[in-house]
Amino acid sequence: MTELKIDITLASSRKQKPDFDHLEFGKNFTDHMFIVDYTEGQGWHDARIVPYQPLTLDPASMVFHYGQTVFEGLKAYLTKDNEVLLFRPDMNMKRLNRSNDRLCIPKVDEELALSALKQLINVDREWVPTSEGTSLYIRPFIIATEPYLGVSPSKRYKFIIILSPVGAYYKEGINPVKIAVEREYVRATIGGTGNAKTAGNYAGSLKAQEVAEKDGYSQVLWLDGRENKYIEEVGSMNIFFKINGEVVTPILNGSILEGVTRDSILQLLKYWNIPVSERRLSMEDLYQAYKDGQLEEAFGTGTAAVISPVGELAWQGEKMVINNGQTGELAKKLYDTLTGIQLGTEPDPFGWTVKVAKQESANLL
Amino acid sequence: MTELKIDITLASSRKQKPDFDHLEFGKNFTDHMFIVDYTEGQGWHDARIVPYQPLTLDPASMVFHYGQTVFEGLKAYLTKDNEVLLFRPDMNMKRLNRSNDRLCIPKVDEELALSALKQLINVDREWVPTSEGTSLYIRPFIIATEPYLGVSPSKRYKFIIILSPVGAYYKEGINPVKIAVEREYVRATIGGTGNAKTAGNYAGSLKAQEVAEKDGYSQVLWLDGRENKYIEEVGSMNIFFKINGEVVTPILNGSILEGVTRDSILQLLKYWNIPVSERRLSMEDLYQAYKDGQLEEAFGTGTAAVISPVGELAWQGEKMVINNGQTGELAKKLYDTLTGIQLGTEPDPFGWTVKVAKQESANLL
Ligand SMILES: Cc1ncc(COP(=O)(O)O)c(C=O)c1O
Ligand SMILES: Cc1ncc(COP(=O)(O)O)c(C=O)c1O
Repeated sequence: MTELKIDITLASSRKQKPDFDHLEFGKNFTDHMFIVDYTEGQGWHDARIVPYQPLTLDPASMVFHYGQTVFEGLKAYLTKDNEVLLFRPDMNMKRLNRSNDRLCIPKVDEELALSALKQLINVDREWVPTSEGTSLYIRPFIIATEPYLGVSPSKRYKFIIILSPVGAYYKEGINPVKIAVEREYVRATIGGTGNAKTAGNYAGSLKAQEVAEKDGYSQVLWLDGRENKYIEEVGSMNIFFKINGEVVTPILNGSILEGVTRDSILQLLKYWNIPVSERRLSMEDLYQAYKDGQLEEAFGTGTAAVISPVGELAWQGEKMVINNGQTGELAKKLYDTLTGIQLGTEPDPFGWTVKVAKQESANLL
Repeated sequence: MTELKIDITLASSRKQKPDFDHLEFGKNFTDHMFIVDYTEGQGWHDARIVPYQPLTLDPASMVFHYGQTVFEGLKAYLTKDNEVLLFRPDMNMKRLNRSNDRLCIPKVDEELALSALKQLINVDREWVPTSEGTSLYIRPFIIATEPYLGVSPSKRYKFIIILSPVGAYYKEGINPVKIAVEREYVRATIGGTGNAKTAGNYAGSLKAQEVAEKDGYSQVLWLDGRENKYIEEVGSMNIFFKINGEVVTPILNGSILEGVTRDSILQLLKYWNIPVSERRLSMEDLYQAYKDGQLEEAFGTGTAAVISPVGELAWQGEKMVINNGQTGELAKKLYDTLTGIQLGTEPDPFGWTVKVAKQESANLL
């Protein structure tokens, strides 16, 4: 993938678009997809945009058996001037390559991958939804395709990008969620794959999630795998707490995903001169702060929901109600600022947004 | 899957069989495969044996993104009387369901799955290889196929069985391997998915394996994820040590796979009145035993290699040479006995082998 000549085959007919006012997350896909193949000795080759279509894979393909796969998640937003903006896509491409490294998958050229993404978006530009709070969710992923039942890195891969128009994560804007602190199951541990965005981390999380949902909680808060003591993150969000005026988030210890939203929030908070601290935080200490009346806010952060306030945390039979179960002031301000930057309605002091120029589609014409 | 009517479509032409004297592991597949689909609300349906063929899957299929998948591995052996024997297949089907439970995948009916397997083997009976040390490796696996980019259990699955004729794991019988004790990476931790046979465990292991191979070791020995102290298992084998006359293997603590070979060996050893102990064993204690001249043998156990003697263990810069790097007497005896039972040349006091009767194929005729 040192040079990217993308072969484009347009769909002969376009799908009916879903109602942009009532989009479900991750259920509708656009008319096209991007694919590039990797073959050992040859590198990445045959980059192409094709009609969205099933993959045809040998049942012995290694991804099915040994889970050698990584993915990313980011969004494109339509501004009121009809521009399409990406939010820090370089961060996702960098993380993709960090995940690749952990999973023994060959790296991709980050710039070329971004260029491919932009071209794909242009082909499906009408799919960037227009309603308030909607966006085009982007899912790049790589799967191991060699048909071989041996545990070793695959000699063949496919890097694919698919697109899905999505609604606001919470229908009526941001709304506090109830989260259960997980005591039995563990998502990741130091030395494992927790800081890579790879399928197995999510497969392992389903069971805890299922139990929590039965108890009326929407997600679990994971503790560390070594001592079951230190706070890590939520299902697909990093976690922040406002404790006595200071904003605290768990430090990146190697088992937590390095969220792009997390990083953006840390930068915003510093820019606003709000005290922040990335550190190890035990559940006991958090509970103590709560008891002392110092736990002012809690919120999760991630691409899908942007900011998700936590109204209640369940821990060892105790229900910790945070900020009276209401969205906190800081969470609201962060949500408004971040979504404002993403949509181009707020100034972008960090240069986070990247325009998808219409001429990216030059080689289409 | 309460009743199993398997629809059989035979391949119109048969593939050229590989040279059974020079089989590579997991690279050749037989003419047919078994598939049954699961749809929420409907259960398992449409059981069929079809020509071995690619799977056609939506790129949003959950297995690619969230790794919801489990698998098994067992073998069929051809006896000198032309019988096909399976080795404790009920154990694999039980473990498949334990894995299913951990991964939130609907259970399969173990008896019906076994019956499907037998029918598939009968259709491809000529593929059970005939040369010394060869066998038919069987890979049942389940993948989540719902096209949905949300982290929750899939509403659709495929349970598939494919077959691969394989050679002896080590070309010249059993041969001691060199293994590096892993210090940096962790395979699994208590509360994680270590005791389930699921793809993510193997994906996460590739990196350590790659590093070890560069250093001239064929596998890594994993330590526990909490303290990095206690011995767990090898890549795809459980581990045993003979220490001062006693055979020791790590106890099933929730993060180790419950190997069928491990269980069989424990039973054999007890039957032979050899002292055995399943317990927590630290690397320090093992090293001390080695220093004291009490570490008499070490060997890995698993379906692929059956018994794999360990001739050298590398730990913290120290090379522990075990039994002069030679195959130990006990390892040899266990290998001969187990493979003898599997091939029907030794008595089977535990009733471990299961015949694949030719009339399993009744509904073929
Ligand atoms: C496990 C996990 N943690 C955190 C996040 C948040 O990361 P980001 O802000 O980059 O979306 C995600 C989602 O990507 C995730 O899957
Ligand atoms: C991680 C792991 N441990 C141990 C084993 C050995 O198990 P079994 O004896 O059932 O093959 C395997 C292979 O299946 C494995 O993958």
